[in-house]
Amino acid sequence: MKTLTVELGERSYPIFTGSNLMNHPELWFPYLESSQVMVVTNETVAPLYLARITAALSGKQWASVILPDGESFKSMDSAMTVFDALLSGRFSRNAHLIALGGGVIGDLAGFVAACYQRGIPFLQIPTTLLAQVDSSVGGKTAVNHPLGKNMIGAFYQPKCVVADITSLDTLPDRELSAGLAEVIKYGLIRDPDFFNWLEQAMDALLQRDEAALTHAIERSCLNKAEVVGLDERESGPRATLNLGHTFGHAIETGLGYGDILHGEAVSIGICQAADLSRRMGWLSDADVTRIIALLRKARLPVTPPQALSPETCLDLMAVDKKNENGQLRLILLKSIGEATLPLPIERHRVLQTLEHYGRH
Amino acid sequence: MKTLTVELGERSYPIFTGSNLMNHPELWFPYLESSQVMVVTNETVAPLYLARITAALSGKQWASVILPDGESFKSMDSAMTVFDALLSGRFSRNAHLIALGGGVIGDLAGFVAACYQRGIPFLQIPTTLLAQVDSSVGGKTAVNHPLGKNMIGAFYQPKCVVADITSLDTLPDRELSAGLAEVIKYGLIRDPDFFNWLEQAMDALLQRDEAALTHAIERSCLNKAEVVGLDERESGPRATLNLGHTFGHAIETGLGYGDILHGEAVSIGICQAADLSRRMGWLSDADVTRIIALLRKARLPVTPPQALSPETCLDLMAVDKKNENGQLRLILLKSIGEATLPLPIERHRVLQTLEHYGRH
Repeated sequence: MKTLTVELGERSYPIFTGSNLMNHPELWFPYLESSQVMVVTNETVAPLYLARITAALSGKQWASVILPDGESFKSMDSAMTVFDALLSGRFSRNAHLIALGGGVIGDLAGFVAACYQRGIPFLQIPTTLLAQVDSSVGGKTAVNHPLGKNMIGAFYQPKCVVADITSLDTLPDRELSAGLAEVIKYGLIRDPDFFNWLEQAMDALLQRDEAALTHAIERSCLNKAEVVGLDERESGPRATLNLGHTFGHAIETGLGYGDILHGEAVSIGICQAADLSRRMGWLSDADVTRIIALLRKARLPVTPPQALSPETCLDLMAVDKKNENGQLRLILLKSIGEATLPLPIERHRVLQTLEHYGRH
Repeated sequence: MKTLTVELGERSYPIFTGSNLMNHPELWFPYLESSQVMVVTNETVAPLYLARITAALSGKQWASVILPDGESFKSMDSAMTVFDALLSGRFSRNAHLIALGGGVIGDLAGFVAACYQRGIPFLQIPTTLLAQVDSSVGGKTAVNHPLGKNMIGAFYQPKCVVADITSLDTLPDRELSAGLAEVIKYGLIRDPDFFNWLEQAMDALLQRDEAALTHAIERSCLNKAEVVGLDERESGPRATLNLGHTFGHAIETGLGYGDILHGEAVSIGICQAADLSRRMGWLSDADVTRIIALLRKARLPVTPPQALSPETCLDLMAVDKKNENGQLRLILLKSIGEATLPLPIERHRVLQTLEHYGRH
């Protein structure tokens, strides 16, 4: 078991990574300083892990909300379901919430924790690779709006993050790959050695080699914790974590949340960002080929779905949170291992990339 | 014009109080550092003041959302209406929001500002006495849930508060009185000299004497700013601002938001808190009589509506945010001018007061 700390002064908190951590409540129980605990999870995760968590809660007043699985349920309606349960169960302002699941559950439960009675403490127990390496760390919480992903949310940090690597044993292959998109992202934006390592280790990761997965998760969390510690509210370097996400969010929103996994959309978005970085003269053809090859090796899609025209994509990108005064702003790559801050990019340049990728 | 500062370090902001401030945009325009501005107001306030605000916004991209008037519209549905307008209008993360109206608009627009793209800056332009002396200051934002008032919200401070006393000229008498309930509250919890002054000045206040109103608003804001500066997130003394509110919220929730104004419910709640304080041996009969007399003089109700039984009230009080582990906690008075921190109170004692007040 390894402990990393996200350094945020009074709001600092540990990330525990290791095997079988859900079966060791002595680790995370001290962070539940309340007699009332609400567990938020989904229909896929509940049968696998809910009983392990609630076994540790005897003696407390606890309840659980089990939401349907999928990005389409990361909605205000789902959040209201949790608020209803909290109020019906008379959960007070010192109740604690546990987010048990993937990125959708973590983001949604974190948002509910941020707003219930103006804020109650919460714990993240991420059960997917994507949530363990990215969404559970850093305090970005949100629900989606039909017009844009993560448009309603809060910066709200958990009390601790428990990344139990054993939970990946039950993760479908497709979701493992989706998580690898965010892992590869860390290499691309700030950690070239890690990118090199990933090229060597990808087969082991796909075979769920425990040592390889452990290294990938720890190194990803280390990168994320450093960036978040520098810039909690994304006024500067934190934005680089969004590499591929502006393109990716447009794909997710355009398809209506559900047909494509977040990590898959990010993979396609990274390819588009790489292509645009090449057009800016920063990446070589060989760099782009190398990036696409690694994503492919991770069994990730690298071209957008045919259903979305370049014009629709561009339109959807216009609501991105990084934009300013109607000007599209993107994270691009100066090299493998170095990202730009959000950069104003002219529409026609973005359209070139979208055309290149969008016509099949 | 007078300027008071709410001292919160990086989040400090000014409260401007004075006549005709809406016609002096040079005062608040510097706080709108964005080319995009969304004004949130209601059907009563819009015809009176919206044009004054938007006249100052030429050259910016602005839009407005005009909600129906009333506490029943302080809901997640109304918040979603504003989110829809922001996204449809492609308002970015550096857009600013203006809350133009009473407490409902201020709380709701503040909550939307707190959550839109994880937080955009906002200005408070309160147009009711209640909002000017209380709800626009201190950063408590929220919407109501059918099971409890202000149950979904955030601590989120505005960039500035513009309390234009001239806007009270158009305020209905009933709403003026409702605001006076919160004014009287400041005297009761921490400012006995102010309470004495209010006993002398109540006639002048009801006649809307400008000097009297100005003093009442400034003194109220001074008290509120001091308390909020000491305890932004209500871990201590800020809770005293809730005198009468636990009883009051139960009345509002029980009646379904709308039949009674918030200030009216607080007035009744203050009487109930005073009665309970007498039963605890802290207030004398004469103190209670004096408190009730001042509220009556302000043309405020002092007994609860017959529709609510004591048992229903007690039930509704169980969801109050100050409660801990199912134990009811109330703010009571040690004397006129001194409040207790939240105090665990046994059910049967609360019931005595509710019985005393609830059977007609």
